Amino acid sequence: MKALVYHGPGQSSWDQVPDPGIKDAADAVVRVDAVTICGTDLHILKGDVPDVATGTVLGHEAVGEVVEVGGDVRTVRPGDRVLVSCICACGRCRFCKEARYGQCLGGGGWVLGHLIDGAQAEYVRVPFADLSVHPLPHSVASNDAVMLADIFPTAYEVGVLNGAVRPGDTVAVIGAGPIGLAAIITARLLSPARIIAVDLAEPRLQAARQLGADAIVKASEGPEDLISDLTDGFGADVAIEAVGVPESFELCTRVVRPGGHIANIGVHGKPATLHLEDLWIKDVTITTGLVDTCTTPVLLRMASAGRLDLSSLVTHTFPLEHMEEAYDVFSTPADSGALKVVLNGPAAP
Amino acid sequence: MKALVYHGPGQSSWDQVPDPGIKDAADAVVRVDAVTICGTDLHILKGDVPDVATGTVLGHEAVGEVVEVGGDVRTVRPGDRVLVSCICACGRCRFCKEARYGQCLGGGGWVLGHLIDGAQAEYVRVPFADLSVHPLPHSVASNDAVMLADIFPTAYEVGVLNGAVRPGDTVAVIGAGPIGLAAIITARLLSPARIIAVDLAEPRLQAARQLGADAIVKASEGPEDLISDLTDGFGADVAIEAVGVPESFELCTRVVRPGGHIANIGVHGKPATLHLEDLWIKDVTITTGLVDTCTTPVLLRMASAGRLDLSSLVTHTFPLEHMEEAYDVFSTPADSGALKVVLNGPAAP
Repeated sequence: MKALVYHGPGQSSWDQVPDPGIKDAADAVVRVDAVTICGTDLHILKGDVPDVATGTVLGHEAVGEVVEVGGDVRTVRPGDRVLVSCICACGRCRFCKEARYGQCLGGGGWVLGHLIDGAQAEYVRVPFADLSVHPLPHSVASNDAVMLADIFPTAYEVGVLNGAVRPGDTVAVIGAGPIGLAAIITARLLSPARIIAVDLAEPRLQAARQLGADAIVKASEGPEDLISDLTDGFGADVAIEAVGVPESFELCTRVVRPGGHIANIGVHGKPATLHLEDLWIKDVTITTGLVDTCTTPVLLRMASAGRLDLSSLVTHTFPLEHMEEAYDVFSTPADSGALKVVLNGPAAP
Repeated sequence: MKALVYHGPGQSSWDQVPDPGIKDAADAVVRVDAVTICGTDLHILKGDVPDVATGTVLGHEAVGEVVEVGGDVRTVRPGDRVLVSCICACGRCRFCKEARYGQCLGGGGWVLGHLIDGAQAEYVRVPFADLSVHPLPHSVASNDAVMLADIFPTAYEVGVLNGAVRPGDTVAVIGAGPIGLAAIITARLLSPARIIAVDLAEPRLQAARQLGADAIVKASEGPEDLISDLTDGFGADVAIEAVGVPESFELCTRVVRPGGHIANIGVHGKPATLHLEDLWIKDVTITTGLVDTCTTPVLLRMASAGRLDLSSLVTHTFPLEHMEEAYDVFSTPADSGALKVVLNGPAAP
């Protein structure tokens, strides 16, 4: 089959590789009908994730049809259309038993396109299929469903739920890339009074406005002042970090109100300064986290009921074999205007 | 009357000052029968709390008898024996309405011995008496009750409750001074499986052991390794910071398990480094806070029922007029072995 293979920092190509097969009785093999590219894939290509071995097929977000299952798989069978979650789960370890699947100790967690071959390919082998794929209802299109493989549960669990957004809150979302935009969409499920989006790029702020931000402000134009003005000087009830650099995290600590929450979603490569000399007295709660995808079933039910707008983030679609072009478009959003790109196999509905 | 007056960094003395009187209809004046010294008072004397004006009477933890009340006070009257809490509360502002009294915007919060004259004196004026003093049952001795003015609710609310200690947890308490020891005592209310105390000083570790720590380790002797060994390599479920320096906070971030809580109690004077490059994926929750004393009534009920050991922390008692000697003893714990010192007025029961 063809697949996007990592060949070390800065290098990848759409190569011929062996078809995956069942290696373990809990595996499923899925034919990929829709797959997307994540900001994390760009981090891998930059060499920021050194535990990705040369030769690994990238990608951890897909929708497709089950073509083969191992003898232990009970909940899906060949022919089923499924969502392949970015998180696999053994279901048996300490963390899986608490639904903290992202921390799985039994060979799951984020492994696809990281520690084992991923989904930017014609076929993908998924370990622990009973807990790692989700059968899809007809009412959710594949190119919508693929948004539930990573960014929507990540934004909802690590941003909105960890941030404890409540009705009436003022929520500041720092960073209006795909994850920040998904945080805006899912924060609205909790009826905040006001969402304020902060970014460096005007087009992303306009997207934030369209997707539900009540106020937008450029990071370079004093977001602290606007957030203070809009909250009678208190600050935001919840600040969601959706960039992954020290500056955006530290901005969160300046704009949160006493008693407020800072939810870090961003993938960070270096430390931040935590101003405990100001914060010790301020009753703040700071959370970090990798997605568990424990909310994927409920987000899927909401999408099926027409109560969750998934498709707005998809700006570009490509045939699967145009993977390299899709990477070029996704990695140059200032030129392309790309938010999420989706690649479709020939059998995509 | 006589009172301990702050005269600028490094200077204080037991001076003759005017008796306090009712200034506002919500005030009470309390005759001080028991008062203690807080580590924060030493910070003030070092000049670390610049908003304390020269001439201020220090102290924010007392027990005594109400001698006068303003016309608006409804719940206490002259003759009542009361606990004077370190936190006053207007009861009317946004934060008071959420029981977040430490953040009071209406003239309360931590004001005694900080922004107004405090309790290291023969008499103290207490604002908003209905919410700032607690009538005491006969069953709780004054020198026990005074431990409920600050350190026990601080350790319980900001350490144990913010840290979300649950039955079966491993709790690491970093710093075994009075606040850390009170955290050990109150953590036991939630039935952790194991409490590990970390400190630089052997006598404090021995005190921790006596008060309920299951394991003790010197900060200089690799607490990370011991905590890892005792938790099958996972780390502590909860790490409580009870020192107030960057090193102890950063130690907390190294010894907490994935999914665990770090509860900062310490008063910090400078920033810490937050290693988000390690922590972003680790599902940690970090909290900071000033005590609200919202748990003082329940802690008082537990003490009254004999289910909370308050007196173990009191190592020295003095007559009230020996205040300067008491400061000397409290500020040299390595020599004196002092944990908490209590000063008693002549009418103390």
